[in-house]
Amino acid sequence: MSVIEKCTSYTRAREAKAAGLYPYFLNFDGRDAGSARMADGREVVMCGSNDYLGLSTDPRVVEAAARAAHRHGAGCTGSRFLNGNLELHDQLERELAQFFGKPAALVLTTGYQANLGAIAGLCGPGDIVFLDKEAHASLIDAARLSRARIQWFAHNDAADLETKLARVAGGADCMVVVDGVYSMEGDLCPLPELVDVCEKYGATLLVDDAHGGGVLDKGRGTASHFALTDRVPLITLTFSKAFGSIGGAVLGDEEVIDFLRHNARSLMFSASASPSNTAAALESLRILQNEPWRCSTVADNADFMRRELTELGYEVGDSRTPIVPVATGDDISTLLAWNLLIEQGVYVNAVLPPAASPRLRTSYTAVQTEEQLARAVEGFRAVRDRILRVPVGA
Amino acid sequence: MSVIEKCTSYTRAREAKAAGLYPYFLNFDGRDAGSARMADGREVVMCGSNDYLGLSTDPRVVEAAARAAHRHGAGCTGSRFLNGNLELHDQLERELAQFFGKPAALVLTTGYQANLGAIAGLCGPGDIVFLDKEAHASLIDAARLSRARIQWFAHNDAADLETKLARVAGGADCMVVVDGVYSMEGDLCPLPELVDVCEKYGATLLVDDAHGGGVLDKGRGTASHFALTDRVPLITLTFSKAFGSIGGAVLGDEEVIDFLRHNARSLMFSASASPSNTAAALESLRILQNEPWRCSTVADNADFMRRELTELGYEVGDSRTPIVPVATGDDISTLLAWNLLIEQGVYVNAVLPPAASPRLRTSYTAVQTEEQLARAVEGFRAVRDRILRVPVGA
Repeated sequence: MSVIEKCTSYTRAREAKAAGLYPYFLNFDGRDAGSARMADGREVVMCGSNDYLGLSTDPRVVEAAARAAHRHGAGCTGSRFLNGNLELHDQLERELAQFFGKPAALVLTTGYQANLGAIAGLCGPGDIVFLDKEAHASLIDAARLSRARIQWFAHNDAADLETKLARVAGGADCMVVVDGVYSMEGDLCPLPELVDVCEKYGATLLVDDAHGGGVLDKGRGTASHFALTDRVPLITLTFSKAFGSIGGAVLGDEEVIDFLRHNARSLMFSASASPSNTAAALESLRILQNEPWRCSTVADNADFMRRELTELGYEVGDSRTPIVPVATGDDISTLLAWNLLIEQGVYVNAVLPPAASPRLRTSYTAVQTEEQLARAVEGFRAVRDRILRVPVGA
Repeated sequence: MSVIEKCTSYTRAREAKAAGLYPYFLNFDGRDAGSARMADGREVVMCGSNDYLGLSTDPRVVEAAARAAHRHGAGCTGSRFLNGNLELHDQLERELAQFFGKPAALVLTTGYQANLGAIAGLCGPGDIVFLDKEAHASLIDAARLSRARIQWFAHNDAADLETKLARVAGGADCMVVVDGVYSMEGDLCPLPELVDVCEKYGATLLVDDAHGGGVLDKGRGTASHFALTDRVPLITLTFSKAFGSIGGAVLGDEEVIDFLRHNARSLMFSASASPSNTAAALESLRILQNEPWRCSTVADNADFMRRELTELGYEVGDSRTPIVPVATGDDISTLLAWNLLIEQGVYVNAVLPPAASPRLRTSYTAVQTEEQLARAVEGFRAVRDRILRVPVGA
């Protein structure tokens, strides 16, 4: 009758640790968007962060965070709703709305909570949430929390979505939920087709642009990349990737945002983003507007790595963003390859089922040097030769 | 067919604004745990924060936050799972576990996400989550997210819980979820009775000690206050109250925490707490151990206000903590009283249904001066005389 009995039989992590192949919860120190120092002192090229623009350690962003702590305190000790609101939160909302070209914005404490707030704030029992098969875990959790019916559609398949929407036409209220950029594959959603289908059936489209916001189209994100910002009713953002901080936002029409301010439980019943996190996100937003080279450089660096990895014989999928997945075939190869890469001075993320098919998830930033990227290429050459034995030109 | 159509008809907030009685999302500046400056420049005594120990603006806590941003960056740009872990997170976990007297701790990015992680990480379809009728919204959301069956029991009523547990005895796995200190009433859960009932039926008890941790029993919280820490399998904490930062934690046995590290989606699929938030929480934890006067002073201040409010004729319920609710009867009286208090230089939280029955939620801290508390008493005297017309001695 106890829900914690299952924990006793959970041994997978302990076994991986015993084998010296446990890839999670590693400590990093002296980290920037190019390199990091691991717990044993080893320096690695960092090809596993989401610090796409290199802003999390930018002196201006860090100084903004420190200044805000001194000015407003280390935390607001209450929700924005009741006693934890600062002009800083409102200012960030105004500047986000303006930059992303939507009428209004709502800032929440994490990107995860932004998705929960938007989806569970708007959808409820009797509604249907249509989810792309590869939608991010936070979107799935948000749909579950809403208690709406969940209907899956095939990844990036607007035709499949249409078939499923057509079946319920005229019935329940519908929301369609997709990632702008998929975090494991680095591919984009087919936004023009999705927008058409949603409009045809009167469904509300939400695009989670966690990995596209701040990165694509000079930072304006996936909707702007497709020149479709006006036709995407809801966009969510996170500040823990290109913005180098933590937090999230929902962008939409004034009245939708106003509704969410008073109905999104993950906003109302959670303390507001700390002054330092909010100030850091705002500073990053200003910097990325003034320094568009960051967006083009991260794209160039990822292009370079895609070419090099492909030339080494790796399969990198449909990636068109700073996220470049490297297929590995199976769990053990993934862990061995991940481990060898660290030995070669390169850190990437080991991803195993059920998160996704076994792979090394690599990601690139605007501030990696040519030398760092060359070292990453050499690491992958060693992995190819010693572990994966990828046939050249495969 | 659109889920956002409902937003057009949402006018309640606009109406309150038009009437000049909108009590939410106010901006505060120059805030500490004793006073704050409102957007119009007015100074108010702050009787509406959760900064119980006055640590959010403590120079040492603020400096720890600033230093961590300089040292590690404004954000970790990844989950603790993959690339966002720092020794700082691990250190905070070790010191939390030791101080609260549990074998292990898991640090998450918000208290809201700590509750989601613990409950939805451990419970699933087929299980039953028993929730106290007054449980915090984050616990309700966590139970919904878990997709377990939800069964309510009467507030603080161990006998009602027992009746309901007895009905399912030997069947589903059960978790019982309560607040240690209830955030709207300031009353404590009847932990000795709850522990007995849970043990009798083999149900796992989770106590959310958001408002008790750092406050009761020299900071050790509700379970320690009852000398029952060893018999409460799961305790959750937040850092956005007594700890003056933001973030949360789950405390429990090693194998349970290890299971949650690899199964709590709100941990795995959300970026880690920022260096500054983590460092601030750690610094607060150290300060409160060395300065136990903070816990006794906040209790004394709340005792003083309870006596004074009772003497003024107010009904303050079962509060035994720094949270003192003041019943107001109806929505309009609540808003008028809240507004008059601001005119009198006192800020409290206006709470309206469905959050709770209409009330002013007041809360006190370790750093309010006698003069500030006297001003609060005078404000409530004016409210009594001009709005609520509470009969003296009622």
